[in-house]
Amino acid sequence: MAGLDESGRPKAVRWENDELYLLDQTRLPVEVVIERQDTVEQVWNSIKQLKVRGAPAIGVAGAYGLVVAMLHERVSGRDAFLAALEQHACYLDSSRPTAVNLRWALERVVNTAKRSDAASAPSLLKVITDEAVAIHREDEELCRLIGEHGVDLISEGAGLLTHCNAGRLATSEYGTATAPMYLAHKRGVRFRIYADETRPLLQGARLTSWELQQAGLDVTLIADTMTAYVMDAGLIDLVIVGTDRVAANGDVANKIGTLGVAILARHFGIPFYVALPFSTIDFNTPTGAEIVIEERDPDEVRSFGRRPTAPPDVKVRNPAFDVTPHHLVSGFITDRGMVGPPFAENLRKLYVTEV
Amino acid sequence: MAGLDESGRPKAVRWENDELYLLDQTRLPVEVVIERQDTVEQVWNSIKQLKVRGAPAIGVAGAYGLVVAMLHERVSGRDAFLAALEQHACYLDSSRPTAVNLRWALERVVNTAKRSDAASAPSLLKVITDEAVAIHREDEELCRLIGEHGVDLISEGAGLLTHCNAGRLATSEYGTATAPMYLAHKRGVRFRIYADETRPLLQGARLTSWELQQAGLDVTLIADTMTAYVMDAGLIDLVIVGTDRVAANGDVANKIGTLGVAILARHFGIPFYVALPFSTIDFNTPTGAEIVIEERDPDEVRSFGRRPTAPPDVKVRNPAFDVTPHHLVSGFITDRGMVGPPFAENLRKLYVTEV
Repeated sequence: MAGLDESGRPKAVRWENDELYLLDQTRLPVEVVIERQDTVEQVWNSIKQLKVRGAPAIGVAGAYGLVVAMLHERVSGRDAFLAALEQHACYLDSSRPTAVNLRWALERVVNTAKRSDAASAPSLLKVITDEAVAIHREDEELCRLIGEHGVDLISEGAGLLTHCNAGRLATSEYGTATAPMYLAHKRGVRFRIYADETRPLLQGARLTSWELQQAGLDVTLIADTMTAYVMDAGLIDLVIVGTDRVAANGDVANKIGTLGVAILARHFGIPFYVALPFSTIDFNTPTGAEIVIEERDPDEVRSFGRRPTAPPDVKVRNPAFDVTPHHLVSGFITDRGMVGPPFAENLRKLYVTEV
Repeated sequence: MAGLDESGRPKAVRWENDELYLLDQTRLPVEVVIERQDTVEQVWNSIKQLKVRGAPAIGVAGAYGLVVAMLHERVSGRDAFLAALEQHACYLDSSRPTAVNLRWALERVVNTAKRSDAASAPSLLKVITDEAVAIHREDEELCRLIGEHGVDLISEGAGLLTHCNAGRLATSEYGTATAPMYLAHKRGVRFRIYADETRPLLQGARLTSWELQQAGLDVTLIADTMTAYVMDAGLIDLVIVGTDRVAANGDVANKIGTLGVAILARHFGIPFYVALPFSTIDFNTPTGAEIVIEERDPDEVRSFGRRPTAPPDVKVRNPAFDVTPHHLVSGFITDRGMVGPPFAENLRKLYVTEV
């Protein structure tokens, strides 16, 4: 079936026989709906409506979206092709203007076409298709490398906790926080994963517990109030989370609730790891104090799946992220290797080595 | 309007002109419905269906329920009255068999009738009515005393956090954790309260934020994932929670999530207080390790209000309570006064003094 991977599991983004398939994540876990994307307008809507989400997955979907757009363009000649391509890139970018990965992926496809010496529309179409596939493959490779560098943290019989969704639904494959888990599972290690539900948007309940269960991993869902309980009961040996941005000193911005999990892990002496592609480290942000925390719609907290659960006019705080100070982090699992403290020094080293 | 207090606010339990009114807490905060209880069967159902909840409030409702029952009994003579009274007490007790306060209140009403020298049905009816009112007043007085002993903890401009609902909806008046807050408010102290929503049953969102808002207090609702964030932001100076049972050494059993809040408070150097009537201290339970934690229906975590939020068959843990070790508690606010560490010694002292 189109949109499934080799093991028959739905993928967030799949390219098959020149057709793009996206899994509608807004309908998970109640329904598994895979939609073929027939027009660029449909791709735009899928990104806008969060049917596809997670920075890497959005970038890949956008790149393929350009191919979908150009497959339907009746242009001939290089100049007409490039003009239409740029127009579609600009359009797709407007679907989620703050998604850095989306813009990056669209620009990369456009620039590759411009730099190529392909003269005809069909040959340019091949160039951009190859580039979209390359972006996709590279993202898969980053996830695989994160998995390789973190897999040895997971020993037979271990209990893991993760927060929010930094899984394969947010990336091309394997995810970030989940990459070591998928790889350990593939290698036959038996272990348990606890996924907290991650209020207010419930990514842990809706997405993480679903994708891990789909892949045959041993996952248990808990409410966010139960994290201390399962740690106290000795069920957790290791925490792995993803991140939206890491400051140069190792402070970690991630989904609201991450800071609480990190403090509880420290209290119970449980190692706390952060998994990420190296590109998520922002060397222009010296510390977490410089990271501005977005405050979201109060109705997300006043309701649960659109069902009101609080007085309609009660005051609410709804920060989308929090910042975990670097001293609560045991290590970073990156595609370039594992990084331990002192983070300011060791993260920089990793950067310099590569340049 | 019947069922409202002097300030026009709905009360969990109200006795007025020989009529019992209960606030249907299952419909909060969407609807405020106050139901007159016309029959003992209706009272039984109101307790069974959690329309009235919280140990002290259930006890008071049960005592008045006996009066409602006997108001409709066509019995004459002492023996017939007492026989019918015992029958109704047994029936009401079956509505929530594990509610210790309910049994205690019913037995107290029955025993008072038995011990009295009233010979006629009308005079016995007066005896049990007076006793039910006495139980109600005593509960109000306990709450008031908890308030008196805790009110000085709340200073002008302070930020407080509470978990779950240990408020006036669970008691006759003032609540336990909320008693110092209501009293400070009455005295004109200006302060802010943060109520976490308390998954899975959302008592913080549905009940605490509602009752504090109704009473004109400055309350802000947060998701459970945001507790560390608001503490880190310097918004919280003090935590006050209620409890279901305190062991002789000061270990505290309370709604799931309390342990996490206590650990975060310790991390940020924020005092953590527990408010309770003295009767909640169980000297027969030496430590928290002996307290058995009830595991509830997994669907509470997989859904909210019958709306699925997770895969229908995903594994779940759903402990109803957790145990906060005494070393994380700054003090106990009781009706007999404030108790500081060492708790094993000081709680016992309070007990001995009184005997």
